[in-house]
Amino acid sequence: MKAKGNLVIGQSGGPTAVINNSVWGALREAERHVEIGEVYGMVRGIQGFLQEDLWDLRREDQARIDGLRLTPSAALGSCRYRLTDDDYDRVLDVSRAHDIRYFCYIGGGDTMHTTSEIGRRAAASGYEMRVMGIPKTIDNDLPFTDHTPGFDSAARYEAITCMDIVRDTRALRDTESIKIVATMGRNTGWLTAATALADDYSPDLIYVSELAFDRGRFLADVEAAYRQRGCVVIAACEGLKNADGSLVAARQDSLNTDAFGHPELGGLGQYLVDLAMSELHLKARLDKPGTMQRSAGLFISTVDAAEAAMVGAAAVRHAVGGTSAYMVTLERCAEPAYSCTTGLVPLQDVANQEKLMPRDFINAEGNQVTQTFKDYARPLLGGPLPAYVTLAGHSVPRRLPPQAR
Amino acid sequence: MKAKGNLVIGQSGGPTAVINNSVWGALREAERHVEIGEVYGMVRGIQGFLQEDLWDLRREDQARIDGLRLTPSAALGSCRYRLTDDDYDRVLDVSRAHDIRYFCYIGGGDTMHTTSEIGRRAAASGYEMRVMGIPKTIDNDLPFTDHTPGFDSAARYEAITCMDIVRDTRALRDTESIKIVATMGRNTGWLTAATALADDYSPDLIYVSELAFDRGRFLADVEAAYRQRGCVVIAACEGLKNADGSLVAARQDSLNTDAFGHPELGGLGQYLVDLAMSELHLKARLDKPGTMQRSAGLFISTVDAAEAAMVGAAAVRHAVGGTSAYMVTLERCAEPAYSCTTGLVPLQDVANQEKLMPRDFINAEGNQVTQTFKDYARPLLGGPLPAYVTLAGHSVPRRLPPQAR
Repeated sequence: MKAKGNLVIGQSGGPTAVINNSVWGALREAERHVEIGEVYGMVRGIQGFLQEDLWDLRREDQARIDGLRLTPSAALGSCRYRLTDDDYDRVLDVSRAHDIRYFCYIGGGDTMHTTSEIGRRAAASGYEMRVMGIPKTIDNDLPFTDHTPGFDSAARYEAITCMDIVRDTRALRDTESIKIVATMGRNTGWLTAATALADDYSPDLIYVSELAFDRGRFLADVEAAYRQRGCVVIAACEGLKNADGSLVAARQDSLNTDAFGHPELGGLGQYLVDLAMSELHLKARLDKPGTMQRSAGLFISTVDAAEAAMVGAAAVRHAVGGTSAYMVTLERCAEPAYSCTTGLVPLQDVANQEKLMPRDFINAEGNQVTQTFKDYARPLLGGPLPAYVTLAGHSVPRRLPPQAR
Repeated sequence: MKAKGNLVIGQSGGPTAVINNSVWGALREAERHVEIGEVYGMVRGIQGFLQEDLWDLRREDQARIDGLRLTPSAALGSCRYRLTDDDYDRVLDVSRAHDIRYFCYIGGGDTMHTTSEIGRRAAASGYEMRVMGIPKTIDNDLPFTDHTPGFDSAARYEAITCMDIVRDTRALRDTESIKIVATMGRNTGWLTAATALADDYSPDLIYVSELAFDRGRFLADVEAAYRQRGCVVIAACEGLKNADGSLVAARQDSLNTDAFGHPELGGLGQYLVDLAMSELHLKARLDKPGTMQRSAGLFISTVDAAEAAMVGAAAVRHAVGGTSAYMVTLERCAEPAYSCTTGLVPLQDVANQEKLMPRDFINAEGNQVTQTFKDYARPLLGGPLPAYVTLAGHSVPRRLPPQAR
């Protein structure tokens, strides 16, 4: 049976700790289908593809390919690039020139829009190319999928990091009373919520971007928690918004809009630090994991790695089977034990949509998550969290009167 | 042979990932000496000791004690507290009341000053108590010791984190060009320098606090690196100072001076982000590991854990042997294979002194570290760094003329 054409795969948007597992899964699946000739990687996503910047992935030695499973960030390179009409034509020209019949693109909402358009235009122009979207985003904001590969490992990062931060803060509570942990998230609080998976060491207060930020309420929450415990750890989503929809801490600089018109985030944490210091006169400090939360190899969730490979493989399998213009999804199987299978959703349905946290994942007061969220997210972390110990603390009876002051 | 008295151990200052190993080492050593009766832990350091807030550590079950080896942060609690004359008297009263004859205190420079004073006053008052300092600080700024327990694990954190950050930044280099990693460090750049241990993925530019920050030179460095590579990762010490000794980014708030009169740090990273954006018109982003770099359990260096236990045990052994008012040090043995033994230094010599990075650990331009530093620091990381792969990248020959623009 003759090969029907070549396959290309690309990585787009912010990297994740397991995005390379999707490449690995796609490559392994491609080996099983004689219809697939060459397997190419886009260098830096669609931006490289436009310049015919392609790598021949079949020429990579197996050790490197297998090493992708434990290698975070985008091994092919990535981009955030919005295609023009001319660019879309060029994508088809490059595809034709390299006889690409299977087109797989890994990314989030913006990427699925691009992928959807490529599929639509290929079909309209009569060029037979199967175009598949492979979901990826630490933000977990893609619709029609139980969750998104990349989220689980980032959630594991948030959970373990919060264990460390909360234990540190409590140990030194008389000195550094307020700690703000600013987590990534443009319009959705999934990652911020994941800090609650630290269980006994989860933040005292959690603010997600689904609910409007109320300055007065925030200060009252922090003060109450401080009175109760002597120190407060607060997880806050960088995309927190006021009641009018404006960002609580937006950067005004004109540089700070990306190719898709999204304003740049990042100042929220320092804003809350300043607020706590100036209004409550408590010492506050910022921890800002930034890039670390999306590309930390030591925090890869085994579930996430396996599922990222699974959606990569499924995209290739469905493409060979005749499917086009769909994104692979994850569908959670019936309880009790956690498992997922893959499903499909039309790319045009998923493009540019965001899945917000349901209201019942957030508590009534809007400053914590609920057990329902924890039940949803906990299996995604893969293995257990570190087994840190806490001393029992057998008090020695006092023998002196209290110190005179 | 009758017990000669009880032992107390306390943890002070910023926690580290291995500070509990020093408690573990001291406890294990204490078991070997019949001279030692009870073993108490100070709850939240000397501040708790003043209130007779003590735990009976011999009543802890062994699983908890052994769990300390993998548990970051201060399991006994910690404090930053400057003792008054009355407090010093109280320390002796509490010591007498609980028949404490062995006094071990784990901490950095400020703590060693406190410990030195306690030893001096105990001797002056005729109360026989052996007072020992156990070194601890992620800052690595204690003198007379090859390095300080806690630093190694924090250095491992910086190295691995920079691998992740640099790979992430290069993958997405057309979008997020400049990344600032703001590392802890008041007057010394040891931790910032440790980012260079990421080898192929070490930051392009490293600025330590030993050299005066020059705004113009910084901008020229960043621009040159950007022209060369298309993206720049910069590690900068939060304690960077101007030529006149003032902090580049100090917080002016009156809250921001700690018990020892040190000004609070933290704003340096955002300052550099703003500088790069406004002057170079490049997109810049801040990663601020904050607390994470000192209390991250997943980054514990095996060398660090072993040495932290070793200095804890040595303190107890020397105290029982008759030594008092000394701090345990680490002495590096002759090459080739890395190993350390312990030594001793009088507490009064070490108190309130800071060990700066030697000039030959920093390059001539003041924007990178040297191989000499890497040779010094590399063995401290313990096991190998993660074996991430990079694809070989076999380019597919182009078949089209370049895209018309």
